[in-house]
Amino acid sequence: MGMSKRLTAEFIGTFWLVLGGCGSAVLAANFGGPGNPLGIGLLGVSLAFGLTVLTGAYALGHISGGHFNPAVSFGLWAGGRFDGRDLLPYIVAQVAGGALAGFILLQVASGQNGFAIDPTAAGTFATNGYGAMSPGGYSVVAAALIEIVLTAMFVIVIMGATHARAPAGFAPIAIGLALTLIHLISIPVTNTSVNPARSTAVALFAGSGALSQLWLFWVAPIIGGLIGGAIYRQLGQDKA
Amino acid sequence: MGMSKRLTAEFIGTFWLVLGGCGSAVLAANFGGPGNPLGIGLLGVSLAFGLTVLTGAYALGHISGGHFNPAVSFGLWAGGRFDGRDLLPYIVAQVAGGALAGFILLQVASGQNGFAIDPTAAGTFATNGYGAMSPGGYSVVAAALIEIVLTAMFVIVIMGATHARAPAGFAPIAIGLALTLIHLISIPVTNTSVNPARSTAVALFAGSGALSQLWLFWVAPIIGGLIGGAIYRQLGQDKA
Amino acid sequence: MGMSKRLTAEFIGTFWLVLGGCGSAVLAANFGGPGNPLGIGLLGVSLAFGLTVLTGAYALGHISGGHFNPAVSFGLWAGGRFDGRDLLPYIVAQVAGGALAGFILLQVASGQNGFAIDPTAAGTFATNGYGAMSPGGYSVVAAALIEIVLTAMFVIVIMGATHARAPAGFAPIAIGLALTLIHLISIPVTNTSVNPARSTAVALFAGSGALSQLWLFWVAPIIGGLIGGAIYRQLGQDKA
Amino acid sequence: MGMSKRLTAEFIGTFWLVLGGCGSAVLAANFGGPGNPLGIGLLGVSLAFGLTVLTGAYALGHISGGHFNPAVSFGLWAGGRFDGRDLLPYIVAQVAGGALAGFILLQVASGQNGFAIDPTAAGTFATNGYGAMSPGGYSVVAAALIEIVLTAMFVIVIMGATHARAPAGFAPIAIGLALTLIHLISIPVTNTSVNPARSTAVALFAGSGALSQLWLFWVAPIIGGLIGGAIYRQLGQDKA
Repeated sequence: MGMSKRLTAEFIGTFWLVLGGCGSAVLAANFGGPGNPLGIGLLGVSLAFGLTVLTGAYALGHISGGHFNPAVSFGLWAGGRFDGRDLLPYIVAQVAGGALAGFILLQVASGQNGFAIDPTAAGTFATNGYGAMSPGGYSVVAAALIEIVLTAMFVIVIMGATHARAPAGFAPIAIGLALTLIHLISIPVTNTSVNPARSTAVALFAGSGALSQLWLFWVAPIIGGLIGGAIYRQLGQDKA
Repeated sequence: MGMSKRLTAEFIGTFWLVLGGCGSAVLAANFGGPGNPLGIGLLGVSLAFGLTVLTGAYALGHISGGHFNPAVSFGLWAGGRFDGRDLLPYIVAQVAGGALAGFILLQVASGQNGFAIDPTAAGTFATNGYGAMSPGGYSVVAAALIEIVLTAMFVIVIMGATHARAPAGFAPIAIGLALTLIHLISIPVTNTSVNPARSTAVALFAGSGALSQLWLFWVAPIIGGLIGGAIYRQLGQDKA
Repeated sequence: MGMSKRLTAEFIGTFWLVLGGCGSAVLAANFGGPGNPLGIGLLGVSLAFGLTVLTGAYALGHISGGHFNPAVSFGLWAGGRFDGRDLLPYIVAQVAGGALAGFILLQVASGQNGFAIDPTAAGTFATNGYGAMSPGGYSVVAAALIEIVLTAMFVIVIMGATHARAPAGFAPIAIGLALTLIHLISIPVTNTSVNPARSTAVALFAGSGALSQLWLFWVAPIIGGLIGGAIYRQLGQDKA
Repeated sequence: MGMSKRLTAEFIGTFWLVLGGCGSAVLAANFGGPGNPLGIGLLGVSLAFGLTVLTGAYALGHISGGHFNPAVSFGLWAGGRFDGRDLLPYIVAQVAGGALAGFILLQVASGQNGFAIDPTAAGTFATNGYGAMSPGGYSVVAAALIEIVLTAMFVIVIMGATHARAPAGFAPIAIGLALTLIHLISIPVTNTSVNPARSTAVALFAGSGALSQLWLFWVAPIIGGLIGGAIYRQLGQDKA
């Protein structure tokens, strides 16, 4: 598969991840106002994030591998499954696709009277954060710890489910639902990143608060991805 | 497979989509009254819509291809996967099957004392709308934008998941859950159409408000479907 | 496979269906009391019913075919997929397995102080009903109509997803999630039966109200199953 | 596969089960405070537990068999699928992996101001209990009964879905979603164990109440596992 098609697939897949995951959070999580059970809540947002990857991986995985996430690309490189020369172009495509989704989401959300982004509010426009910008007010240490551990486990699931001895064809289900699980655990802590492109995509439009904390959502997921890739490289004997 | 069986399958599948998706919205979304968490809410309705397509595609997809949606038929035609001569009969079967479901749903819903359709209320009888008829009061521009983008992505997922290089057999899961995802994002904006037959099926019974806005839910999904089909036709090298 | 193993599998599978579906409704739907969103609500109960069949069909389907439901057995007989001489023993095993689950569920539920079955309350102990015994107060006509239509569609999905041209191995997913979908639509109307064994299993322990209406949840699902089997027999050209 | 890799896989898988299942319960179930529908509730926690096993089994099952649970290891031994000499090392690895997850979860949860474990409160830090420590105040008899029955059914699903005649590759879906179903039924009764390693992992950090009741969550799941393994051994003719 040519590189331009691969990058287009990563662009579209990350676009879909941000549009679906962050879009459901911005548009539908609190539908009807605080306390209204009609809204999809954290459970619905968790499902939406996972389904973007499940559906994107079935549709586009055979073109690009279906990373849609710089931390995954780093993790697969550490795991011996991805060529380091492709890291930079993949990451650029991912961030660009995510940013386009953030832009479109902003246009749609702005079509409702009274829509506003408060750059100092935790989780505004689906942004990631810690401390005062954490949905549950969790410390930066808790935020870093959970992002590292969950990204490491995400990469372990990805490498394991795509291993030659794993049942063929099921990987997008396992990987997508792993992302759902990750959100079920950690939205209260950081609003869940495990994906620097997703964090960047909405921070670009959400103002100072999210941008000033964006560094953590590059550093922690990439560290986690590298750890996960290194662990599974041993466990799965990928070279054999 | 003969055309009459294919059209019967499209009729039944679209009947199922409307009965299940719109039926869950009308009968169960608000069960127990406003604020009661027993009701299935937007998350349950999103799941229901997706499961109609997941189950319908496994049951009927091997007969008709499992479109159940005029915008999908147009999109697959644009993508080079569907013969343009079959567009009209498919769409007629889809609209007729959906309309029968709308009729049966009305009979069931009317079996509850106090049931009433308010033709001026947003989302009444699971209808689609914008402006005053949008569940969240979103503008016509926001409505058109989200319907176009989501239908385009829906067709991309459909074409990608049924591509020869995608894992065989999993497409109904990917496609059905993509429809769930689409609803998780956009019920607040338009009550989610991405399917002119679904919109028509309930508008027929819901009175003036929905009917006067029905045009958008033919135009926007079909535009989106055509865009998605054209994009994936390039990306997937379908002709090769 | 010998008949005794097949009947044991039907016994266990229907036990699982009632324990899981009705158990989640009795024990967890309203956890924390009315208005408490911690409870799993109608969405959780719908998921539970579907997962009993999804998991039971993967575990036991290769032994008995995985009916777990007299209306399905009748439907498959009408569809030409099941030998009429096996109808009676299958149904006896299904009802017995369901009844054991109802008995065990009663023992567990009674372990909570204050647990009581009100034989005149709609949906008490997960029973099915219409009119005053319908969760949403739906008429007997609406109840009969939805039970017939949904059971017919259930059998169509079962026959279609297990058809030789459908992707192999996925049928338990399609069938289980079809049952989830059916519950998402119709719990407010009848508390959802589509399964005479499930209705009987809890009515036996719930007193006069449910028992006096039990006839409908034998008649309507079996009619629906026969209709669905007859429709798909034509559509799927099962004999060819 | 060498034993050290198998034990590492069991360690990681049980780590994931506890981090995801108990983590979602501790961090996200009640997000926003009592009565707030944003939290994932019992339905979200049920889904999270199941997804840990679904994803872990796809990623690690081809290394260790994917037990992640001493009661499952005992059950598979009773069912003739697991060598009794491997029981002890598997169980040690499972308990150790779970305990590490409990420790990390405690660090993350402690990153929120006001976080506290009340050792006398039912379900505190996702612990299992009966009587005063049962979320719904269920008796020890009800608790033992439901844990035995559900673990038996869990092992039956595991053995059936991995049987040579079951569709290949789908077992992690069936098994993971069976665990979701089990939680949908029984969180109100015992907070759902069916897994002594999971119970131990959080009891270690939750103080006297949970520790004093931990015996039941070793005894009942193991009895249930043995029963389930023995039943399926007959039913599935595993030796043939």
